[in-house]
Amino acid sequence: MKIGILGTGDVGRALGTGFAVLGHEVKMGSRHPEQAKVREWLKKTGPKASAGTFSEAAAFGEIAVLAVAWTGAENAIDLAGPENLAGKVVIDVTNPLDFSSGALRLAVGHTDSAGEMVQRWMPQAKVVKTFNHVGYAHMVNPKFTDGPPTMFLCGNDGSAKRKVAVLLEAFGWSVIDIGGIESSRYLEPLAALWITYGSRTNTWNHAFRLLRK
Amino acid sequence: MKIGILGTGDVGRALGTGFAVLGHEVKMGSRHPEQAKVREWLKKTGPKASAGTFSEAAAFGEIAVLAVAWTGAENAIDLAGPENLAGKVVIDVTNPLDFSSGALRLAVGHTDSAGEMVQRWMPQAKVVKTFNHVGYAHMVNPKFTDGPPTMFLCGNDGSAKRKVAVLLEAFGWSVIDIGGIESSRYLEPLAALWITYGSRTNTWNHAFRLLRK
Repeated sequence: MKIGILGTGDVGRALGTGFAVLGHEVKMGSRHPEQAKVREWLKKTGPKASAGTFSEAAAFGEIAVLAVAWTGAENAIDLAGPENLAGKVVIDVTNPLDFSSGALRLAVGHTDSAGEMVQRWMPQAKVVKTFNHVGYAHMVNPKFTDGPPTMFLCGNDGSAKRKVAVLLEAFGWSVIDIGGIESSRYLEPLAALWITYGSRTNTWNHAFRLLRK
Repeated sequence: MKIGILGTGDVGRALGTGFAVLGHEVKMGSRHPEQAKVREWLKKTGPKASAGTFSEAAAFGEIAVLAVAWTGAENAIDLAGPENLAGKVVIDVTNPLDFSSGALRLAVGHTDSAGEMVQRWMPQAKVVKTFNHVGYAHMVNPKFTDGPPTMFLCGNDGSAKRKVAVLLEAFGWSVIDIGGIESSRYLEPLAALWITYGSRTNTWNHAFRLLRK
């Protein structure tokens, strides 16, 4: 499958590597596709990997991944071109983190969410919110002592969610669908909880699991 | 220890029974302490159990538990008398659930939370938010296949949180402190996630665990 990744930070590169290892073709989209970290990633990742502008990556992908800092998300979507994402599955990994006060807070919540905003910014795309409540180091092939962690996802299109669930399961996640994109209102605070635990303990090797009987 | 429980619903009775089994003295507080479900609970629970008004239960407890429906929470605190709770540990189990639209939403969030409101309503109490992100059937001695679930807690008083952690651990929980009472902004959406999964699957036998390496 062809996957376009919008964003070349830690998250974008980790997911890009993970998809390429599984045999997918990955195009990394960036404001600056010539920058060193992108060139290094291409060299390391091999023939399945390419890079281009946000627009080129969006046009390339059958599935796209939005993995940019929240403050740049709307602009990244403008640059990618919502028309390049129309009808496609877009995995929204963003979190509306705001550290401007010195402490973590979410820039949006309760009656709205980043996931819903992203869906509004690309109304013809099938946005699936997921991957946002674990650190990039554990997104691909998460290994924890007590069983596979749980990745929650939500979105308005059932078929899109099933496609994303297949990708997540290939990475080793146990996947749970929690409804429409408005459930991002719960998954973004879950990311904040993940970060809060990390900040308080200065450890970043944790993940949630939903236990069942 | 003497524990006053404000609220005689499923949550209040489950916790009251759990505390009594551990040897604590429990007084259940109610608007109607003579009602049948309270009399039955007293009969079943035995000599460690008593019942009275909200005010009597609040005055009785060295620790109090707020376990009422959110719509009645402020009134319950008025009836209990914040002066009866001054200086005491108050475990806030409430969730600001609002089903008035037909679907679940939270009545407060993002920039405020039920936990913070409860703390403001009893400014001299040491409010600890916890127990809100699992169903009453699993609050005491939770048994799941893959290890003990995690109970998060938050509050502004470290000593109060340690006392509550001891009670939680006696019930079999693994306890994680996630900071001041404002972290209720993450624990109440976590409850909404718990409920959303339950509603979608019509199963209520689940709990969160934070996996670590």
